[in-house]
Amino acid sequence: MKFFSLRCFFCFAFFAALPFTAVTGLAAAPDSVEQWGAFEAVFKGPAEGNPFVDVEFSATFQQDDKAVSVLGFYDGDGVYRVRFMPETTGEWTYVTHSNRPELDGQTGTLIVTAPSAGNHGPVRVRDLYHFAYADGTPYWEIGTTCYAWIHQPEALQEETLKTLADAPFNKLRMCIFPKWMVYNRTEPELYPYVGTPPATWDFTRFNPKFFQHLEQRILDLQKLGIQADLILFHPYDEGHWGFDRMGAANDDRYLRYVLARLGAYRNVWWSLANEWDFVKTKTVSDWDRFGQIIQANDPYHHLCSIHNQKILFDHTQPWITHVSLQDDRAEDAVRYLNQYKKPVIFDECRYEGDISQEWGDITAERLTGMFWKTLISGAYCGDGETYVDPNDVLWWSKGGTLHGQSPARLAFFKKIIDAAPAAAAPLSQKNTWGVEGEYYLAYLWDRQHAYQGLTLPDNASFKAEIIDTWAMTVTPVPGVFAGHIEIPLPIKPYQAILLTRISGP
Amino acid sequence: MKFFSLRCFFCFAFFAALPFTAVTGLAAAPDSVEQWGAFEAVFKGPAEGNPFVDVEFSATFQQDDKAVSVLGFYDGDGVYRVRFMPETTGEWTYVTHSNRPELDGQTGTLIVTAPSAGNHGPVRVRDLYHFAYADGTPYWEIGTTCYAWIHQPEALQEETLKTLADAPFNKLRMCIFPKWMVYNRTEPELYPYVGTPPATWDFTRFNPKFFQHLEQRILDLQKLGIQADLILFHPYDEGHWGFDRMGAANDDRYLRYVLARLGAYRNVWWSLANEWDFVKTKTVSDWDRFGQIIQANDPYHHLCSIHNQKILFDHTQPWITHVSLQDDRAEDAVRYLNQYKKPVIFDECRYEGDISQEWGDITAERLTGMFWKTLISGAYCGDGETYVDPNDVLWWSKGGTLHGQSPARLAFFKKIIDAAPAAAAPLSQKNTWGVEGEYYLAYLWDRQHAYQGLTLPDNASFKAEIIDTWAMTVTPVPGVFAGHIEIPLPIKPYQAILLTRISGP
Repeated sequence: MKFFSLRCFFCFAFFAALPFTAVTGLAAAPDSVEQWGAFEAVFKGPAEGNPFVDVEFSATFQQDDKAVSVLGFYDGDGVYRVRFMPETTGEWTYVTHSNRPELDGQTGTLIVTAPSAGNHGPVRVRDLYHFAYADGTPYWEIGTTCYAWIHQPEALQEETLKTLADAPFNKLRMCIFPKWMVYNRTEPELYPYVGTPPATWDFTRFNPKFFQHLEQRILDLQKLGIQADLILFHPYDEGHWGFDRMGAANDDRYLRYVLARLGAYRNVWWSLANEWDFVKTKTVSDWDRFGQIIQANDPYHHLCSIHNQKILFDHTQPWITHVSLQDDRAEDAVRYLNQYKKPVIFDECRYEGDISQEWGDITAERLTGMFWKTLISGAYCGDGETYVDPNDVLWWSKGGTLHGQSPARLAFFKKIIDAAPAAAAPLSQKNTWGVEGEYYLAYLWDRQHAYQGLTLPDNASFKAEIIDTWAMTVTPVPGVFAGHIEIPLPIKPYQAILLTRISGP
Repeated sequence: MKFFSLRCFFCFAFFAALPFTAVTGLAAAPDSVEQWGAFEAVFKGPAEGNPFVDVEFSATFQQDDKAVSVLGFYDGDGVYRVRFMPETTGEWTYVTHSNRPELDGQTGTLIVTAPSAGNHGPVRVRDLYHFAYADGTPYWEIGTTCYAWIHQPEALQEETLKTLADAPFNKLRMCIFPKWMVYNRTEPELYPYVGTPPATWDFTRFNPKFFQHLEQRILDLQKLGIQADLILFHPYDEGHWGFDRMGAANDDRYLRYVLARLGAYRNVWWSLANEWDFVKTKTVSDWDRFGQIIQANDPYHHLCSIHNQKILFDHTQPWITHVSLQDDRAEDAVRYLNQYKKPVIFDECRYEGDISQEWGDITAERLTGMFWKTLISGAYCGDGETYVDPNDVLWWSKGGTLHGQSPARLAFFKKIIDAAPAAAAPLSQKNTWGVEGEYYLAYLWDRQHAYQGLTLPDNASFKAEIIDTWAMTVTPVPGVFAGHIEIPLPIKPYQAILLTRISGP
């Protein structure tokens, strides 16, 4: 077998607007990529033996005194790739490292251009409890959940993307490994490992086609402005395929492979587990080791969390950037915020639906209310939908179309918060969110008040609007307001009142 | 001054149907009283000095080898009374004890007849977690709250009684001391002590007129089949009158006086406090001492509790018969039941209303749901109503009329549970209450299920009815059911399904 050893076999960059398979051309001049885009350098190398295990491959990217080390990976057919997400513009150079001479010491240059429209960079923690894109644009999390959407037939995946394009969500929780549980007894087309389903796998040989498909789906989401909250391990296997019990060495290799392949995509979040405490095949020290592997091998410090069933993981761990919670008590938000001093997302607060399981039978009213209540408490929320379907296509797991009443209300919610000041946060007046002296949004959740009292500055004028978060109406209240006010409200739940400054110092 | 020293000045018994002031006549023949009625013997004694402090007075009632000691009390104008609630029929004798010779060694006889219709005796704990009247009739608690109704103008008190006569409630939480807090800044006509409002009292001299009026109201409730859950201390005074800071000696004298006057009324429950942890003028050991005073001086062992604001009192104390809770999380019921092995009443789960306080702004849907959810969880619930009123007459405190939507639903709730088997309790199937093999009531609370599954015996036939607990409808499901069933339900909250055996072993 003959080995290729070109300086750079071909290099290309991913743009949000281009499909994964696009190749921008062979690199003669320095390659170009936009800031927070995914640069990729491709090399030919050994295909014999087991390159996933035998070949070490990485690269260091450098700009002035900044050096960033990234893992490379084997993509099958003797092809090796290394990806890099530059966080600054200008010229970067790189050099590869390998235990195989043909992959070692390869160098190149790339020019990082300004980000294109719609590219705000990855999402980061802002002001301890909140999120913003790297360019400073506020990120108001509105999550949804389609755990196993990438493991469904192609047509259903396309339908899911079509639904998401018209939906208000900007984060999607999704599993890398396929899912085997109630409503989910189907075999996917692709598996992450070479082998035969259900349970004969070579855990030392990844299936590049599976990961190429996963990457395509992450980029599809990126085009829609959606963060991919990637669930790295989960308990919904129970030995059917055995991806939940591969052993520490295979787990760690899998994690490094995922980090090498996916780390350069700006819309990736790491979720170590769904329901970590329900995964009986791993220990707390396993999860801690996983967190440390991510910390050591993700130079971009993507958001990283670990979702619980009943027992919260020790969220003081430094590798946990935010609390990703299963809890349907929005009133608990303040406790979590105070305890962990990190952003809090109620990623699973039960789903709108009518299945018999208690995690999937809440009303649209209650789910919509969770988003508003967590917001004004300083936290964020995630959605899911579980209506009984004759073909067992439930959005929460398989995607498809949405049937419930909450998505339209969440689009209304998004419209309101997108128009709010970037620095909006819980205020000292009860149930109130906004910016002191400027903007006050009081939300009453499932409660009903004949009057809403609020204290505004005396020396400024405000306009008042009553927001019916369920009926999706905004009704101006006649008059101009200042000082202490008491505004009559409709006697029904899910009402809010918004005071916006129209003049004053 | 001349002292009367008749054997028994005059004796009379209270019947539910007679007003307090009725005197059945002078006693020549043995007095007669029905079982669980309130027998009273009246004596003339010293009026000079301070009889409330100076005169010790009690009696022992005896039947065969049963002896019951009760405290007597001074009722003003030289009149001393001793009351007794016989718990068995037949002849009883009594003898008085006093440090004053004219009140000491007086004897008498009474004949205890069978209870009249509607007199089931006091309510007791049944089967660890439930309640029944002393005659075995089940008592399904449906509480309400009018804390300060006896401190309102007479016409309003009469209106309250009229409202209660048409309402489904069989327990009323009410304070002995008047209340001084938001919506409650009025001075009552009568005070429990001799003195001048707001704050000049002689805590060693009770005002008999106040207590006579209280007794009348307790008997008014008894006539309506309503238990008087008497709150002995509360924090809503804050020094305005000072009844919350009388000191230990006065507190203890007050308790003994209340026990002497009210203990013989079968519809009395003792609630040591409302929001005990909000009473800053007493310590845990004060409350424990109060509990022990009650235990020592209430020979009938009326139900006794202590209601919390945020911190539950140590409910392992033997003087606490049941948990009287402030908590709006019905799902916590099981935890309390398991922890204390006593009946649990959610006496305060926030009130139906539209005031701005978070304890008085829930919807009728939610409050009604609390009753159903606590019932199927094995606990009980209490109501209250706090709609804004131009005259500040809120049911929860002052009584008057009910304006909300929950009372009609609670009447419907009462109709359903009154028709249930006496032994109904939570069953092993989720969210289900009833008697195995006979009666299954599954309630879905605010959840929505397309289907409700239930497993019935194979060898019996059941009829099925869908209960819309909000719309107050009972809709028969066509067919006869056995074995495992899945019944389609309307996709909306507050639905229940009832399976009743129609034939089988």
